Amino acid sequence: MIKAGIIGATGYAGAEIARLLLAHPQAEVVWYGSRSYIDEKYSSIYGNFFKLVDAKCMDDNMEELADQVDVIFTATPQGLCASLVNEDILNKVKIIDLSADFRLKDVSVYEKWYKIEHKAPSYIEEAVYGLCEINRKDIAKARIVANPGCYTTCSILTAYPLVKEGLIDPDTLIVDALSGVSGAGRGAKVANLYCEVNESAKPYGVANHRHTPEIEEQLGYAAGKEIVINFTPHLAPMNRGILATEYASLIKKDDKLPTYEEVRVAYEKYYKNETFIRLLDKDVYPETRWVEGSNFVDINFKIDERTGRIIMMGAIDNLVKGAAGQAVQNMNILFGLSEDMGLKLVPAFP
Amino acid sequence: MIKAGIIGATGYAGAEIARLLLAHPQAEVVWYGSRSYIDEKYSSIYGNFFKLVDAKCMDDNMEELADQVDVIFTATPQGLCASLVNEDILNKVKIIDLSADFRLKDVSVYEKWYKIEHKAPSYIEEAVYGLCEINRKDIAKARIVANPGCYTTCSILTAYPLVKEGLIDPDTLIVDALSGVSGAGRGAKVANLYCEVNESAKPYGVANHRHTPEIEEQLGYAAGKEIVINFTPHLAPMNRGILATEYASLIKKDDKLPTYEEVRVAYEKYYKNETFIRLLDKDVYPETRWVEGSNFVDINFKIDERTGRIIMMGAIDNLVKGAAGQAVQNMNILFGLSEDMGLKLVPAFP
Amino acid sequence: MIKAGIIGATGYAGAEIARLLLAHPQAEVVWYGSRSYIDEKYSSIYGNFFKLVDAKCMDDNMEELADQVDVIFTATPQGLCASLVNEDILNKVKIIDLSADFRLKDVSVYEKWYKIEHKAPSYIEEAVYGLCEINRKDIAKARIVANPGCYTTCSILTAYPLVKEGLIDPDTLIVDALSGVSGAGRGAKVANLYCEVNESAKPYGVANHRHTPEIEEQLGYAAGKEIVINFTPHLAPMNRGILATEYASLIKKDDKLPTYEEVRVAYEKYYKNETFIRLLDKDVYPETRWVEGSNFVDINFKIDERTGRIIMMGAIDNLVKGAAGQAVQNMNILFGLSEDMGLKLVPAFP
Amino acid sequence: MIKAGIIGATGYAGAEIARLLLAHPQAEVVWYGSRSYIDEKYSSIYGNFFKLVDAKCMDDNMEELADQVDVIFTATPQGLCASLVNEDILNKVKIIDLSADFRLKDVSVYEKWYKIEHKAPSYIEEAVYGLCEINRKDIAKARIVANPGCYTTCSILTAYPLVKEGLIDPDTLIVDALSGVSGAGRGAKVANLYCEVNESAKPYGVANHRHTPEIEEQLGYAAGKEIVINFTPHLAPMNRGILATEYASLIKKDDKLPTYEEVRVAYEKYYKNETFIRLLDKDVYPETRWVEGSNFVDINFKIDERTGRIIMMGAIDNLVKGAAGQAVQNMNILFGLSEDMGLKLVPAFP
Repeated sequence: MIKAGIIGATGYAGAEIARLLLAHPQAEVVWYGSRSYIDEKYSSIYGNFFKLVDAKCMDDNMEELADQVDVIFTATPQGLCASLVNEDILNKVKIIDLSADFRLKDVSVYEKWYKIEHKAPSYIEEAVYGLCEINRKDIAKARIVANPGCYTTCSILTAYPLVKEGLIDPDTLIVDALSGVSGAGRGAKVANLYCEVNESAKPYGVANHRHTPEIEEQLGYAAGKEIVINFTPHLAPMNRGILATEYASLIKKDDKLPTYEEVRVAYEKYYKNETFIRLLDKDVYPETRWVEGSNFVDINFKIDERTGRIIMMGAIDNLVKGAAGQAVQNMNILFGLSEDMGLKLVPAFP
Repeated sequence: MIKAGIIGATGYAGAEIARLLLAHPQAEVVWYGSRSYIDEKYSSIYGNFFKLVDAKCMDDNMEELADQVDVIFTATPQGLCASLVNEDILNKVKIIDLSADFRLKDVSVYEKWYKIEHKAPSYIEEAVYGLCEINRKDIAKARIVANPGCYTTCSILTAYPLVKEGLIDPDTLIVDALSGVSGAGRGAKVANLYCEVNESAKPYGVANHRHTPEIEEQLGYAAGKEIVINFTPHLAPMNRGILATEYASLIKKDDKLPTYEEVRVAYEKYYKNETFIRLLDKDVYPETRWVEGSNFVDINFKIDERTGRIIMMGAIDNLVKGAAGQAVQNMNILFGLSEDMGLKLVPAFP
Repeated sequence: MIKAGIIGATGYAGAEIARLLLAHPQAEVVWYGSRSYIDEKYSSIYGNFFKLVDAKCMDDNMEELADQVDVIFTATPQGLCASLVNEDILNKVKIIDLSADFRLKDVSVYEKWYKIEHKAPSYIEEAVYGLCEINRKDIAKARIVANPGCYTTCSILTAYPLVKEGLIDPDTLIVDALSGVSGAGRGAKVANLYCEVNESAKPYGVANHRHTPEIEEQLGYAAGKEIVINFTPHLAPMNRGILATEYASLIKKDDKLPTYEEVRVAYEKYYKNETFIRLLDKDVYPETRWVEGSNFVDINFKIDERTGRIIMMGAIDNLVKGAAGQAVQNMNILFGLSEDMGLKLVPAFP
Repeated sequence: MIKAGIIGATGYAGAEIARLLLAHPQAEVVWYGSRSYIDEKYSSIYGNFFKLVDAKCMDDNMEELADQVDVIFTATPQGLCASLVNEDILNKVKIIDLSADFRLKDVSVYEKWYKIEHKAPSYIEEAVYGLCEINRKDIAKARIVANPGCYTTCSILTAYPLVKEGLIDPDTLIVDALSGVSGAGRGAKVANLYCEVNESAKPYGVANHRHTPEIEEQLGYAAGKEIVINFTPHLAPMNRGILATEYASLIKKDDKLPTYEEVRVAYEKYYKNETFIRLLDKDVYPETRWVEGSNFVDINFKIDERTGRIIMMGAIDNLVKGAAGQAVQNMNILFGLSEDMGLKLVPAFP
């Protein structure tokens, strides 16, 4: 039985890890860390765990935690994981960090977009970007897994095969995405009150959202060169779900656009055998309701011959594949388990 | 492996049975019956099942179905199950009927409240009311289980111990309840369109909702006499969930109201060992979010010394404990399995 | 032109007063008081007022304000108005207080339910309870109008004629109500975050909500005696709206229940000529969507002959008739204007 | 007093016209046409009009209607207006058509995208596209006004000044938009049921939505040449609101991108004096909540120097500026009234 600790267990992502691991046959949570609620019963914060979890919230002492568990999930604000990690800890446990601390390889890019100093730059190099479908071999050997952002998971996977195969011009890539409100976390802010969010939609972080460099870096690896893109997130009035609609110019061969079949083949080359990626049938588009509560990524595309562009679309549950589900998937890889263990979740509808 | 057929598999309750049985270790759905969608892929109706269910929708030929399965779930409008059932079928399969056809023992009460003729009154007597926590012994031996209504499951369980123990006057019982919209089914009606329901709440079926006689009959057994109550359902703008707030006058002993502890003891007497019933801590009240996606019933109460009344409150997920979950629980009982098999569902939040 | 000041202009009720007065032909807001946002542009807090209101937020100096305006609306937490009011101010301006400070005539009841000391008990006696349809004559002469609570407005008006006419036994009265989330105010609390409220319903303040004594006092006047009732509020996932479902035993005459017509006549006696009260057609029940954005109260009832009870139902927009609309209606009365001036609002749907 | 008739008065757009005209000082509705509800009281369909509108629904006999009114609003499916209009009618009344029948000048484009035959192509030429801020001079003289689509109103106005001034390359224009559900109309379809739409977001009409040629035609006039664009609509779980996020490459001059100020000047050149267009302050982006219930269009932009693109954003209430409000604005222009008469609506929040 893998022993897991969660730092930040009372945030939405942390609580989703707790939910997933409760049903995981080979792992259990033994440390529910939450600085804000120390000594309070975890189930008094999240009533869904009443009669299921008896534990009380603990502090975020990573040293002590490292002695008690096999894997630590840090579902905390940027900077915390980097400020706590050290060699002693890494020699004892695996760390799966849900913050952005180890996602970007260039520390100056991190510091520019996140506007904080990185406290453990020496570990950036060894940390592995935990986008399981792309990096599973490296993940298996890692000590620190940088769990990808929610928008980025969806945005990258939706476009990856076409960038990799050179079917689209990556410099024309525009990612227009929307997210449910749980992505904003559980902090008590006026902007996230029910009445402020309900019955409204809005863009935010326009041209400067922090997930931009993460998408650029990863798709840049696929493209084999640096790329810059536009990424615009929007807030939609729903609890969960990310929907990415992405635009790019198709690259013509012999003055002809790639056909539907050629694009389909590219997607299948990479995703055909992926448990968690569902390439939808032709002309069926992703909807967040069909992935809610599950680790699936639903993907499809449409070629617009009039403009020569392709519209790629992807949907995930931001708390599952966009956070906790992928974190558990990474844990499974790290510990040599079947990748879908504890993650055979049927999306719940309605 | 128990083979199950669902008649009405494309309604919300039918689809929830499908979802639950996909994760059930000892049962599988082999017949997705849906008159409206015959020969269409089930996953084209419910995209959440894409890549998980390959089957096409079948008709509702119960005779043929009886040859192929061990248990039939009828998640269909009132009258259908009664019109199809016969001795030949019942000799081959168990039937768990999610409609009201076999819930009321008095056929005239059924015909008065449902305004249709009962087509199989001869089976009413032998059918067992499938409220598992109350009737599990009889259920185990049944051929037909009448799966309780959603409002009724919540309303009865919330008041049952106090009626049974004579702590409240059942003739003063008032059940004020609200439901999410999935309880209204998937029929294409203007009244259930998004814009008609969203941002609004309304009472309906005032003083004549069909779940009234069902609550009265069952609580009448507990009271040991016939009772009449008030039951008012309301529609609330959310997908799932039933919340029942119930009022009754406490019966004084020696001119004193029962204490909190006395009432608590009564609840615990019946529910202490029930897996799916959670008596909440003092002054913590049920909220539908904490049971969503699970088979739990959350219950608590508050004594108002000023008025001498008790306020009892219960919450369930209408599609799980109020329909599909309880149906699977009944299946487990019928087939001698552990009652919680396939039902260890952690409520999903948010 | 009546000059109005709002203390608490950045709360939801305060902002609704601002919205209503913008369209009022004889009044204008000249002071947007908001301690939290002093010197910030009001339209930067509420973007709906962009290009409509140029003013910046002011402090809540009631002395200074009294020199500049004819009427002050205090849309502030309990205790603030009572702590600021004095004879000097009252000699200059009318005060319409949306808090509970002057609603209850018995200061000990106030202090018991609100758990704060009343700072101006000497003004309680002269303050007039601003339920316009009941008290308009006294309101016209008042210096302080205690604007009723949202739940109370709906709860009282729904039952008032039957209590007054002695058709129901007031001691059997149970008020089960639900509210949209704007009633909880704009404070940054975890409990009111979008994801905490969305897709859920819950009771709160069970047997001890502060609107209870207010309902009891006012309906007690109608009954001609002290009464105690049960009042249970619930939170529903929608921005606006209050729905009250009320139960009481009908009083028999000559062993017969009152008829539908007799009850109807009682309602019409009081409400027939009321602009803002709509007695719905038989068997049409109030829904909050039909009053949203307006000052209407929709009311209807159903007699249950089986139990001898009547179910009374009422719906209002909590921010309009339940707060700002009634406040403006009170202002109109205070200044001798037509009561519906600026309030001919057609409910907006959907 | 202008007498108005509405054909399609029981659709959402028709009902919104009814709501707006109730508060219009110089117009009144004398004919509530609704084929589906003939002889039913209008307020029995839309309870918000109870006690405000006494009329019953009429048929859609345009000939007869033309004798009784000054202006006819057709808020009906595509094809109906074109099938009814004739010279006799147009000699008597003005027609404001909310369908697409007269929006596209090229009948073959209409027939290709709408897949129906145009029944009155002879009137296409004289019909005026009723985008008030652009075409008010021509509208004033028209007999038929083609009221623009909801997405198109928002999409065109958001980009118009930059296309007109040559600041962006129109062939790079991508419009990514989302809409509330009222845009889908009041037809009883499973896809628009509460539970199907709630808690989900989806793209639809990808690369083939019918508003595409309308945007292309109008922005093509501004560009002085034919253009093709990408337009992707999405459905979001809210009643009202359209949010358009638009991307285009800025055109460099002397190898430099236009500055914020240069772009701002272009917007102000066209919109500075427009009552209903609000250019937001720098870095404040449109949100649908701030325009809900009003005729406003909120617009802003952000230059992304990294990619050389501009992101333009606009928000409207789809039922007001996107349908009924603009229709009333067109009526005001047609009859020489102040353009904002009856439209000084303060957005309602929350």
